[in-house]
Amino acid sequence: MPDHVEPPHATAAAAETVKEHSAPQDLVFHAGWFCPFVQRAWIALEEKGVPYQYNEVNPYKKEPHFLKVNPKGLVPALEHHGKALYESLVLLEYLEDAYPSAPALRPREAHEAGIVRLALQHISNVVVPTFYRYVQAQEPEKQAEGKQAFVKALQDTYEQWFVKGDAQWARGDDFGWVEAALVPWVARFPLLEKHRAFNIDGVGPEFKAWAQRALDRPSVKATTSEATAYEQIYRRYFEDTAESEVAKATRKGEWLK
Amino acid sequence: MPDHVEPPHATAAAAETVKEHSAPQDLVFHAGWFCPFVQRAWIALEEKGVPYQYNEVNPYKKEPHFLKVNPKGLVPALEHHGKALYESLVLLEYLEDAYPSAPALRPREAHEAGIVRLALQHISNVVVPTFYRYVQAQEPEKQAEGKQAFVKALQDTYEQWFVKGDAQWARGDDFGWVEAALVPWVARFPLLEKHRAFNIDGVGPEFKAWAQRALDRPSVKATTSEATAYEQIYRRYFEDTAESEVAKATRKGEWLK
Ligand SMILES: N[C@@H](CCC(=O)N[C@@H](CS)C(=O)NCC(=O)O)C(=O)O
Ligand SMILES: N[C@@H](CCC(=O)N[C@@H](CS)C(=O)NCC(=O)O)C(=O)O
Repeated sequence: MPDHVEPPHATAAAAETVKEHSAPQDLVFHAGWFCPFVQRAWIALEEKGVPYQYNEVNPYKKEPHFLKVNPKGLVPALEHHGKALYESLVLLEYLEDAYPSAPALRPREAHEAGIVRLALQHISNVVVPTFYRYVQAQEPEKQAEGKQAFVKALQDTYEQWFVKGDAQWARGDDFGWVEAALVPWVARFPLLEKHRAFNIDGVGPEFKAWAQRALDRPSVKATTSEATAYEQIYRRYFEDTAESEVAKATRKGEWLK
Repeated sequence: MPDHVEPPHATAAAAETVKEHSAPQDLVFHAGWFCPFVQRAWIALEEKGVPYQYNEVNPYKKEPHFLKVNPKGLVPALEHHGKALYESLVLLEYLEDAYPSAPALRPREAHEAGIVRLALQHISNVVVPTFYRYVQAQEPEKQAEGKQAFVKALQDTYEQWFVKGDAQWARGDDFGWVEAALVPWVARFPLLEKHRAFNIDGVGPEFKAWAQRALDRPSVKATTSEATAYEQIYRRYFEDTAESEVAKATRKGEWLK
């Protein structure tokens, strides 16, 4: 039964957030509580503090109304004044463009914005696919390879895209897009620790300190469910029986278009 | 000799453009005359009319200075006041952000900008990889499959992302990002016609009319070299002996990260 999501709704702090955003609004956020791509845009919505209505969608059901919002049938998606948009990174850009006076997650300086877009390409094209390959690896040898590749992808992200020094956040004093785009997978590290012998210490102490700060950030806490809830969803990934588009592409050695 | 580019420089109208942009400027455009990803940003520079210095780079040589500009060793890249940036789509965003008062290629309205970013994802993730698979296909059967997939990718682009009706351009009255991102491959259709029995009529009359208008656009003409020059570069693709990152990824059934 590949289209089953259990539990069907967010839990813990994320359940509170969903409740606070149940009233109708011009901006409808079509989301799946368990989805890290959703969490990217959700963190941005919380950081910006703009009004939105949270709408829980089971993307595996591909219901006709939802396919009108996103023909790809993936969450996250949004409708704003009835106009639809999707793809997590496109939504991050949109929220900056549509709410220019809300707190910014995209750097205001053009070159710095370019650097952050390159960082987001790296995260989406290297870190995220490496995460799924690691999670879905079955043989111990493949799991060891997966771990090594994932740790390296995180180290490379830190080396190449973090400003380092005394900075609290990846690009300096401001929590921003690098956090929004990467932290959802960091919030799922406990699953890797339990099922794939992952240890964040292997990435490095600075990355670990950044990750802890990010997990303590109110917008991240407010969009995170209980570990046991993720556990139920990700079981299919750890057994490599998940039927999501991401899981199928990973199994074929490809990456989701 | 995989790092050989012959002819080494732009020809025809593009050679004139290179000459006009040989004087030192704050913005240095690191380019390869033959590269369609380069042409995306080059069209944008010409449309915006901002001062830039054209610097011909042979990206296959991976020279140390160039690897400092772009560690991936790919053109296009730019340095602006000494600060480097690369990846064609990131450069398109940058040129809009850095020159807000020059003619805009990115829609000013937030939702429309989001739609165009989705269109660019489709072009880059579907149309462009399909082009290389078609070009590099060797067996007649694979070539036929490649043609079908490429024609379909173009038709889908038209169906899903063009506003249609009386519009001159993909998104309406303004030449914009969809043109900049897609036309460089349209400018290489003559190669497909000659070597792979491609016929633009198969895509549809509206797409054909749009393509012709785009090829007549001054910014496109000014960045296009002679067909015979492209011919020399693409021979290796048609024989599937090219050693570029794009060609190697295509051969492995992957797509360039
Ligand atoms: N590239 C998309 C990926 C979104 C995605 O894969 N979402 C998953 C849930 S985490 C989904 O909707 N899956 C439904 C399916 O695979 O059928 C983005 O960045 O938004
Ligand atoms: N994703 C890059 C692709 C750029 C690219 O592949 N450029 C080619 C020339 S067309 C290159 O520099 N190739 C050098 C190599 O493959 O080693 C972009 O959009 O800018």
